[in-house]
Amino acid sequence: MKKQRYKWVMDLLVDNDLQAFLVTSLENVRYFSGFTGSDATLLLTKNEKYLMTDSRYTTQAKNETRGYRVVEYVKKVMGIVDVISTQHVDRIGIESQHMTYALFSDLTAKLDKTQLVPLDEEIRTARIKKDASEIRSLRKAIAIAEKALESNMDHIKPGINERDLAQEVEFEMRRLGAESLAFDTIVASGYRGSLPHGRASGKKLNKGDLIVIDFGARYNGYHSDETCTVCLGRPTKEQRTIYSIVKEAHDRAISSIRPGIPFQDIDRTARQYIKEKGYGQHFGHGLGHGVGLAVHEEPRVSFDTAGVLQTGMVFTVEPGIYIPDWGGVRIEDMVLVKPEGAEVLTQIDKEIKVF
Amino acid sequence: MKKQRYKWVMDLLVDNDLQAFLVTSLENVRYFSGFTGSDATLLLTKNEKYLMTDSRYTTQAKNETRGYRVVEYVKKVMGIVDVISTQHVDRIGIESQHMTYALFSDLTAKLDKTQLVPLDEEIRTARIKKDASEIRSLRKAIAIAEKALESNMDHIKPGINERDLAQEVEFEMRRLGAESLAFDTIVASGYRGSLPHGRASGKKLNKGDLIVIDFGARYNGYHSDETCTVCLGRPTKEQRTIYSIVKEAHDRAISSIRPGIPFQDIDRTARQYIKEKGYGQHFGHGLGHGVGLAVHEEPRVSFDTAGVLQTGMVFTVEPGIYIPDWGGVRIEDMVLVKPEGAEVLTQIDKEIKVF
Repeated sequence: MKKQRYKWVMDLLVDNDLQAFLVTSLENVRYFSGFTGSDATLLLTKNEKYLMTDSRYTTQAKNETRGYRVVEYVKKVMGIVDVISTQHVDRIGIESQHMTYALFSDLTAKLDKTQLVPLDEEIRTARIKKDASEIRSLRKAIAIAEKALESNMDHIKPGINERDLAQEVEFEMRRLGAESLAFDTIVASGYRGSLPHGRASGKKLNKGDLIVIDFGARYNGYHSDETCTVCLGRPTKEQRTIYSIVKEAHDRAISSIRPGIPFQDIDRTARQYIKEKGYGQHFGHGLGHGVGLAVHEEPRVSFDTAGVLQTGMVFTVEPGIYIPDWGGVRIEDMVLVKPEGAEVLTQIDKEIKVF
Repeated sequence: MKKQRYKWVMDLLVDNDLQAFLVTSLENVRYFSGFTGSDATLLLTKNEKYLMTDSRYTTQAKNETRGYRVVEYVKKVMGIVDVISTQHVDRIGIESQHMTYALFSDLTAKLDKTQLVPLDEEIRTARIKKDASEIRSLRKAIAIAEKALESNMDHIKPGINERDLAQEVEFEMRRLGAESLAFDTIVASGYRGSLPHGRASGKKLNKGDLIVIDFGARYNGYHSDETCTVCLGRPTKEQRTIYSIVKEAHDRAISSIRPGIPFQDIDRTARQYIKEKGYGQHFGHGLGHGVGLAVHEEPRVSFDTAGVLQTGMVFTVEPGIYIPDWGGVRIEDMVLVKPEGAEVLTQIDKEIKVF
């Protein structure tokens, strides 16, 4: 395990008076151990590291991890209980936002000397700052996704339907080496742009449509997430105005990024501007979210988030205006917090593009 | 809600002395309400049906459901608590294998008059029998996946790598209207065939390889799941022998299917035959699993499953032999249990194919 990650675990144990941390979410399993399969649980103590998995993955787990004792189980609950029983541990931290009630209650029933301690806030910082190797993977995921969109720009024309455009971009991401999509590509054109979550449909692109394209790739476990809104044909005055409001809100938020600034302030910078321009009720969601081994992770950058920016955080800045029956504009970049301010990781420039 | 599904819920309430069932898994949300988005919770009582979701999905939920009161929440826990508080309910069933410990404990802390009752075995039957419309969706998913494989048969040749073959099949499934893949396509050739879970890699197909191809599409929420093992070049005597043992085990299992037969017997029919032929230790996994809104669901058809086959169940029959450093053979079909026996839903015939 990397030194900083090991230190984070040791601090967690000490701060919460725990003898072990039981890791059940696959993102954290991968983060701490390097294991990439779809079933495994870690038990991390001060001196020992166990990885428990089923027979499909024993060989892979041994190849992918270092310093872990790999234990094969037939039934997960019994496998975990057996390993815990070999340790002298009174209190084990668990991921309460991930472990199911059934697993919690099965383990509790079988472990009479060990208490499971639900952790939530305490573990949100686990992956919150990215190291150099993580940032390399994020850059690569971004490069794949952007190249895939750019090589399909000629498909943005009247008569093509949203789903076909999305599919061509998705195919190209895979050809370029993406492990998978980061999420189902959103192509929401014309009136559909008012759905913040408008998965690509059979609707055809029409002249005059604003088209919200929200896309991302996964590479080496890491995700990209970016949104371009483009215009098919010359934008109307209203389209231009709304686009420029969202763009200005986006630019102001990014300019205000520096370590030590509260998340709420970054959100407010964008939100306040959109509100002043009269569109406050049309921007309902938070400004952004962390991106890494999960496509949505800490930090949440929103009006109700506590905490401040720190060097090494990576998150999206994605203000939007959504007007029912009219359409929508969202502009989304991924940024890395550096001592001197934001580095924008995504490369496609966000001036309005007309096709 | 369809009559039979409503009846299942009412029986669940009566049998377990519950006033409501809180549905948090997206498959069950879709099954009972028709809602297809990525966030919603249902509260089902004898007289009321609530669907709680966030602002992204309110419009969609109203369009997709009938007879539901759609409630928009900002914070999920509070949204659920608010709805429950308007009802007079002492005991509410929850999906213990799905609800997180955090949600369970938050809800418990906020609901002082209502007890949450963890359900597990009691709800495994929810989607276990498929109705006519579900079977139509399953057939369509199968047709898409099979057409995609068949139109890529000319890619099965020496020098092509596993990942490229998988990708071409996947692209074709999408072009043919699949909503998504049912799972990451497995192409495991030569020695890699011994990994039951061998996701397509950069390994090239070689003359003499047996190639395990496990693939599926999702359509209308329903999944297909099928495995063909093919041979590149003339099979050796050993390859032919092992293939024919797996094929015979598969055929015998399917022939033994009838309502009322224990799951264990179906598994044993295949397992016993493979064992008699001397390969018992090379068939580790269960014989099959239900397929529907989830790609793996009830019923499990294995050596340790209780229960008997019933008309309307759909599951896979997928015996295999996996020999380290040599390779593997798996043959998998999806079957529907009918009064007179199994109908094989998958259409590709499973005689050994030589390329």
